[in-house]
Amino acid sequence: MSDLEQILQQVRAGKLAVDDAMVQISEVQHQTIESTTIDHAREQRTGTPEVIYSEYKTPQQVLKAFELILGNGNNTLATRLQPEASELLLDRIEGVVCVPEAQIAYKKLTEPECPATHIGVITAGTSDLSVAEEAAITAEFYGNIVERVFDVGVAGVHRLFSRLEVIRSCRVLIVVAGMEGALPSVVGGLVDKPVIAVPTSVGYGAAFQGIAALLGMLTSCASGVSVVNIDNGFGAGFLANLINRL
Amino acid sequence: MSDLEQILQQVRAGKLAVDDAMVQISEVQHQTIESTTIDHAREQRTGTPEVIYSEYKTPQQVLKAFELILGNGNNTLATRLQPEASELLLDRIEGVVCVPEAQIAYKKLTEPECPATHIGVITAGTSDLSVAEEAAITAEFYGNIVERVFDVGVAGVHRLFSRLEVIRSCRVLIVVAGMEGALPSVVGGLVDKPVIAVPTSVGYGAAFQGIAALLGMLTSCASGVSVVNIDNGFGAGFLANLINRL
Amino acid sequence: MSDLEQILQQVRAGKLAVDDAMVQISEVQHQTIESTTIDHAREQRTGTPEVIYSEYKTPQQVLKAFELILGNGNNTLATRLQPEASELLLDRIEGVVCVPEAQIAYKKLTEPECPATHIGVITAGTSDLSVAEEAAITAEFYGNIVERVFDVGVAGVHRLFSRLEVIRSCRVLIVVAGMEGALPSVVGGLVDKPVIAVPTSVGYGAAFQGIAALLGMLTSCASGVSVVNIDNGFGAGFLANLINRL
Amino acid sequence: MSDLEQILQQVRAGKLAVDDAMVQISEVQHQTIESTTIDHAREQRTGTPEVIYSEYKTPQQVLKAFELILGNGNNTLATRLQPEASELLLDRIEGVVCVPEAQIAYKKLTEPECPATHIGVITAGTSDLSVAEEAAITAEFYGNIVERVFDVGVAGVHRLFSRLEVIRSCRVLIVVAGMEGALPSVVGGLVDKPVIAVPTSVGYGAAFQGIAALLGMLTSCASGVSVVNIDNGFGAGFLANLINRL
Amino acid sequence: MSDLEQILQQVRAGKLAVDDAMVQISEVQHQTIESTTIDHAREQRTGTPEVIYSEYKTPQQVLKAFELILGNGNNTLATRLQPEASELLLDRIEGVVCVPEAQIAYKKLTEPECPATHIGVITAGTSDLSVAEEAAITAEFYGNIVERVFDVGVAGVHRLFSRLEVIRSCRVLIVVAGMEGALPSVVGGLVDKPVIAVPTSVGYGAAFQGIAALLGMLTSCASGVSVVNIDNGFGAGFLANLINRL
Amino acid sequence: MSDLEQILQQVRAGKLAVDDAMVQISEVQHQTIESTTIDHAREQRTGTPEVIYSEYKTPQQVLKAFELILGNGNNTLATRLQPEASELLLDRIEGVVCVPEAQIAYKKLTEPECPATHIGVITAGTSDLSVAEEAAITAEFYGNIVERVFDVGVAGVHRLFSRLEVIRSCRVLIVVAGMEGALPSVVGGLVDKPVIAVPTSVGYGAAFQGIAALLGMLTSCASGVSVVNIDNGFGAGFLANLINRL
Amino acid sequence: MSDLEQILQQVRAGKLAVDDAMVQISEVQHQTIESTTIDHAREQRTGTPEVIYSEYKTPQQVLKAFELILGNGNNTLATRLQPEASELLLDRIEGVVCVPEAQIAYKKLTEPECPATHIGVITAGTSDLSVAEEAAITAEFYGNIVERVFDVGVAGVHRLFSRLEVIRSCRVLIVVAGMEGALPSVVGGLVDKPVIAVPTSVGYGAAFQGIAALLGMLTSCASGVSVVNIDNGFGAGFLANLINRL
Amino acid sequence: MSDLEQILQQVRAGKLAVDDAMVQISEVQHQTIESTTIDHAREQRTGTPEVIYSEYKTPQQVLKAFELILGNGNNTLATRLQPEASELLLDRIEGVVCVPEAQIAYKKLTEPECPATHIGVITAGTSDLSVAEEAAITAEFYGNIVERVFDVGVAGVHRLFSRLEVIRSCRVLIVVAGMEGALPSVVGGLVDKPVIAVPTSVGYGAAFQGIAALLGMLTSCASGVSVVNIDNGFGAGFLANLINRL
Repeated sequence: MSDLEQILQQVRAGKLAVDDAMVQISEVQHQTIESTTIDHAREQRTGTPEVIYSEYKTPQQVLKAFELILGNGNNTLATRLQPEASELLLDRIEGVVCVPEAQIAYKKLTEPECPATHIGVITAGTSDLSVAEEAAITAEFYGNIVERVFDVGVAGVHRLFSRLEVIRSCRVLIVVAGMEGALPSVVGGLVDKPVIAVPTSVGYGAAFQGIAALLGMLTSCASGVSVVNIDNGFGAGFLANLINRL
Repeated sequence: MSDLEQILQQVRAGKLAVDDAMVQISEVQHQTIESTTIDHAREQRTGTPEVIYSEYKTPQQVLKAFELILGNGNNTLATRLQPEASELLLDRIEGVVCVPEAQIAYKKLTEPECPATHIGVITAGTSDLSVAEEAAITAEFYGNIVERVFDVGVAGVHRLFSRLEVIRSCRVLIVVAGMEGALPSVVGGLVDKPVIAVPTSVGYGAAFQGIAALLGMLTSCASGVSVVNIDNGFGAGFLANLINRL
Repeated sequence: MSDLEQILQQVRAGKLAVDDAMVQISEVQHQTIESTTIDHAREQRTGTPEVIYSEYKTPQQVLKAFELILGNGNNTLATRLQPEASELLLDRIEGVVCVPEAQIAYKKLTEPECPATHIGVITAGTSDLSVAEEAAITAEFYGNIVERVFDVGVAGVHRLFSRLEVIRSCRVLIVVAGMEGALPSVVGGLVDKPVIAVPTSVGYGAAFQGIAALLGMLTSCASGVSVVNIDNGFGAGFLANLINRL
Repeated sequence: MSDLEQILQQVRAGKLAVDDAMVQISEVQHQTIESTTIDHAREQRTGTPEVIYSEYKTPQQVLKAFELILGNGNNTLATRLQPEASELLLDRIEGVVCVPEAQIAYKKLTEPECPATHIGVITAGTSDLSVAEEAAITAEFYGNIVERVFDVGVAGVHRLFSRLEVIRSCRVLIVVAGMEGALPSVVGGLVDKPVIAVPTSVGYGAAFQGIAALLGMLTSCASGVSVVNIDNGFGAGFLANLINRL
Repeated sequence: MSDLEQILQQVRAGKLAVDDAMVQISEVQHQTIESTTIDHAREQRTGTPEVIYSEYKTPQQVLKAFELILGNGNNTLATRLQPEASELLLDRIEGVVCVPEAQIAYKKLTEPECPATHIGVITAGTSDLSVAEEAAITAEFYGNIVERVFDVGVAGVHRLFSRLEVIRSCRVLIVVAGMEGALPSVVGGLVDKPVIAVPTSVGYGAAFQGIAALLGMLTSCASGVSVVNIDNGFGAGFLANLINRL
Repeated sequence: MSDLEQILQQVRAGKLAVDDAMVQISEVQHQTIESTTIDHAREQRTGTPEVIYSEYKTPQQVLKAFELILGNGNNTLATRLQPEASELLLDRIEGVVCVPEAQIAYKKLTEPECPATHIGVITAGTSDLSVAEEAAITAEFYGNIVERVFDVGVAGVHRLFSRLEVIRSCRVLIVVAGMEGALPSVVGGLVDKPVIAVPTSVGYGAAFQGIAALLGMLTSCASGVSVVNIDNGFGAGFLANLINRL
Repeated sequence: MSDLEQILQQVRAGKLAVDDAMVQISEVQHQTIESTTIDHAREQRTGTPEVIYSEYKTPQQVLKAFELILGNGNNTLATRLQPEASELLLDRIEGVVCVPEAQIAYKKLTEPECPATHIGVITAGTSDLSVAEEAAITAEFYGNIVERVFDVGVAGVHRLFSRLEVIRSCRVLIVVAGMEGALPSVVGGLVDKPVIAVPTSVGYGAAFQGIAALLGMLTSCASGVSVVNIDNGFGAGFLANLINRL
Repeated sequence: MSDLEQILQQVRAGKLAVDDAMVQISEVQHQTIESTTIDHAREQRTGTPEVIYSEYKTPQQVLKAFELILGNGNNTLATRLQPEASELLLDRIEGVVCVPEAQIAYKKLTEPECPATHIGVITAGTSDLSVAEEAAITAEFYGNIVERVFDVGVAGVHRLFSRLEVIRSCRVLIVVAGMEGALPSVVGGLVDKPVIAVPTSVGYGAAFQGIAALLGMLTSCASGVSVVNIDNGFGAGFLANLINRL
């Protein structure tokens, strides 16, 4: 029985004055919106209530947030983890898994239901590995099976063709590329699945820390391509999970 | 029997030299990739082989392309239509439907299968109407049912809440906004569905023809949001259809 | 009796030649403009004659400026304090208060008059804390009571609603946000008070060190919002004090 | 008696089931937020429920919006009015006032209460006149008395000094400037009142349609200065009214 | 016998004083550098002394320049020709050839020697046609045979593969693309010839009038690619001719 | 006898109270700064009190300003003149001189004193002519003799060398260039005179309306070069006159 | 005998069913495209199969890649080498050559055929040395003879003239410049050979890490100039080798 | 007797064949241009042949350059000196003067002639000190007397007025400012002397490392102002010397 229902029952039973009920409903309503409708829904559907973005946090803050979420009985994920925070988690959270090349740490208490379809993570070059792994491990954390197709950039486009079968078998594709960011356009022209493009800050000079790749992906001549922020592997993995569970 | 099979049969039968077979296979392979695998697939899955982007074409070029695609027995869609091209199509293509406020024209020969789930198109203000309609009509052209939730921008965020039920009932959401482009962040925090954000070039001064909205959407603090090019209503509608059919 | 009056009295008494008086008046006039009209006014109204911006100063320079202003009997405030300068001040100025997370140090000799109305400081996320505290402590330094409403960003907009009463009770609001900087738009649509928006350099990729937030705030679809420089918590606190004392 | 109170009374009286009450409360709550709390408040406090931004609207759309707001018994204001829309309003709305140089039209049904203090509008050059008048007339529309101090840019800073008395007599100042946008810094250093800086798109070359002025104002070395969007005279006038009524 | 030799002979013969010779040599040297070494060389090697860039010239100025160069017995080429200038040339220069879609006019008096190898001009889409034709006709004007491979953009990369043989048969390739500008990367990975990339201003939104394509080409992950200015078809054709004649 | 002296005399004579004298002095001081010191000085030294920048003015406003300045007995100059304003001036101001290619009109009542030394105006190409003439005619308006050295851009640097003698004979040089803006660097390396560089908005694509030239000039590897705004021929001519009169 | 030929022989001999052959051909075809056609061609023509871009790799990764390529019997080149990687290579690869100022290491097993013509590498200043040496050593690694013409920037353009003979003797020119990047324009106007311009990130302030030079080179008024990415010495050397071998 | 004259004498005397003379003249001519005309002129007129820009040089390279120039008997100046280079110079060059806050070192062998007029160096704030001193010491190195007017920024414009007399006594003014860079506009409106504006990279957020100040100075509403690169104190001092010596 919800809080709102309880209040109404009390009003009906004459145990609560109308004026007092109005104040209580106002408070409960917010809690309702806050906790139940939105956060609880998020928890039940995606398997975790919140993710810890560690970049602007001290190791202690990361640890505290990790313990808090874990303590609520949730699977817990921390991204953009600095080495010090990583060590602290390893030291203090039993059973935590740290993936340094993806700057990720996580601990699962329950295994999320695994969708039948797969998510593909494709990279242009080995330099995009870190962002790609952030995306892949995020998707796996939420219970998906991930197909990795790495180092198939457009300067050697034949490499992509030899992997076309596995690419086409996925339900949604994450394409990670730096420099000119052309790979999502090529992939988008070869499949009929949603393509999530992730520009990376890899490259020098006119790459401008990912701007060249970002603009290239936004202006892609292929339909079915959408873009997330530069280096935002987590966002891509999170979105791919949403789509894969539809 | 495929071309490749025929060649091999001829080799087996000794009617074709190995050298000549190698040349023929190379040619056939390309045709295979070109026509069958990719283009035919596109046709069968999305309901249309190609879309006419009219912005850089003369009215005559648009008409010609329209007739060509239609002549192949396909449903046909033209976007970014200038008034002259629109008039020419109305004059020459019987049964064409023109939607001036979306700058779109289309003609359907067959009705695509209609998915059970809906696509939501949400706008921040009335100025975003044209781009939003481009997205909505594109999605409808591909056979989807579209829920329109217009003029619910963040400066009056209560308007959004009163429409939350219909928004949450959709399988995928297109959120169209200019100026600061904040609406996708708010929507993304209220739903657990994929959000396709479309920045528009609406606004003046520091809006910089959509750059402010674009950056705002890319850096959205809500997960589950991805972005297409500025004013790219078609791209959003196309992608939403892909996702809605998964 | 002012210097100008003294000179004129001397002229009247015949103790000073007209020519010499003209030279003296020219000199005094500058001092008048310089010290009395402007600086003295500033002192009397805001409670401090000048603030020390420490970012480009050595610890010694900061200390010297601090002692100088304090020595004139003024309440003294230093912002953007590096740790070394902070330590030096703690070591050398008795009774100085250092707030590391806001990079601020101050010492009050007299308590400024406290306005009856409050200033609200609202943040989108915990990463904006440092800038928000710079704003809040500045406002407090000038004698205001500050209401802190932290971590109510638009990706979970319900958090904002549950704090609406306290927000609406303030006379002027400072809204601090990084990434897409959408919070001032939402707040501006819910209140009829001036909103001072502070973009922060929090975020990565297309956040471009605060440019995304800055553009988002400048193009806000809500009226009543104005913007200060990226990370300029001091400027927002100073302005809020001016408005709160009107 | 509010809707919420009525529902609770019905629950208490046993006339309404708890389940039905929960649905009704949810609906009422939204309506409450939507209509009463926010929009009605806006109307009562600022004297107008909404302003028509005409730039992206056809003359007919502007007319229709004007009639709608006016029909609700409200004072009505339209900004960024194109000549055709202006003519249509003059032709169809009796008693409408059009100010072509400010691209504004308005009609007042009731005169808003006039604050005792004044708002100052200061411009650097005659080229900033249009934006300055948009600000000034907006402030006057909301019932304020405006002091205009025009053409006192920093290249002849003495002009500013001769008007200092009237400038200092205002409660809040709007400073409008294009090109290098230096005037707000100079004014901000001479007064202890809030300064709202409006960059204009006046200038050529490296003025970049107002970017130079915008950056200059954001990085102003004077405290107490905040900035609105380029050419946003309305926003400045609206905010000045908010502050002047505190 | 050169001018310098003549002066020296006169000095030797005692007909010219050393002092006078020094002045004369100084003057001649400049003429030598100016006319002979550089301009004459240009004429003899490339087949034309100068090209008329018409964009900032009136039709009369274009005509005058055309007649002047032609009058010196040179093959003459004008680029970026506006329709009025085109009509004037057609009216006044007998035998002039105008190519409206490339905005080019030319007249050849002598046919340049034709290199045995070909130049390839490849485009991503039909919208790049105008710039591609400017490049192709420029190359042809200088006597080269051009292979046109149009509309083979990366969103349908199989189209490119079916034309690979002709592409690989060329000695130098011009690749013209707008939007994300990814085609040169793909081509550069398939050939071992110099690739001259030409970004076009085709596209909308984040294409930023060719900036996206330009950055994409500059950061190409394929080696052997260099870039000319946005829409600079002439520059690409000119350079390709230089390379094809090596 | 100055106003200040008069007041002091009156104080001495006991005709004026000290209090009243203080108010009067404050007023007089401002007038002194305003009219005499600054404006009169400007008039006497540069030969004109003010210049009319016509770009944002109507023809009537230009005419009125022209008549006002002329009526005060001053030589009068209007820049950035649109054709309509030009015609109006020709029609109404007897003896006005209009130079359409420089968008300038002027009338001299008295001939300014002519310095013995000359000002050089150098351009890279014929497209820079308009800005160069604005600079040259401005310099001539103020009484200087101008040496024009046009069309000597760096792509044919020998043209510059043949004019080196006249260039070196000038006291100050204005160098006007668009596109890559390299000419001031070359000139700056050949002379020991101040070089005023004027970037022009000539060029396409990556010229970005003069940004390429502006950046090139600011980063010039030659010393002695300073830069004015894009297309600011007037500013260069004005500054050159200042320097030539030192 | 190729794999494809073997399969066909087996089909002819009846040893392989047509169905099985079709599967095998599909697989082989990819390998064919991948290994033979493209990579083998690259090897045979340019003398190396791949180059190691070291910037985003650990010393161990660089070493491993180096050994792999070398182990296949290829000449091996690593660019953008950090000191640690350099030391590791020197320690572990016998006979490796490290060039610290060019951040390059290489080892040749066979000496590539040396073209008769030379490649010129020209720099504006000594600060461009590192990028220029990356270009020069790359060109030499591929077997070319390189003429170095260093420190001949446009601020002392006479230095360039004294080296003109050697410059004109080269078949293709690499011109390296930072700051305003004007040197390629001047060189391009003096020769009739392809000029590859390399902007460097040398300079401060408005040089913007090479943007000024990049824009200057893209908008060069000289024909025959194309541009590679900022600081991309390797790319220029690679392209020059391609051209020199045509 | 010049080299050219010697050759001609030898030709006249029959000691040198005309052919050989032509080759020798060509070589000599370059030397003439190179050494005599330009470099010698620079030396004689400005008092130093070249200045060492140390930012991209190792301490050893700086030392070597210093010794070389000094060894030729010239006054020697090094700018942008890092501490290590500074120490090395102090250790190895007897009598060298190092000014750490200006990052400058110099040694004078002869004192340049001192012009009668002075150069003014004005700064907005204490943070601009380093750049201002670079300018001032450069000007002094070339023999000028410098008036320093520091910390008179526009937020307290009265400070500027009290120093107006000394400012107006200078022949040329260098105005150094960061943040909004408004000071040159104010100064330019108060004097009739050339103003050289130096933007500094001081400031945060929207100051964008000097871009705000740079744009503000370029678009200054005051005439007589020109701009050098961000932080380019040397360039301003060098140019001021050129002007002061005219």
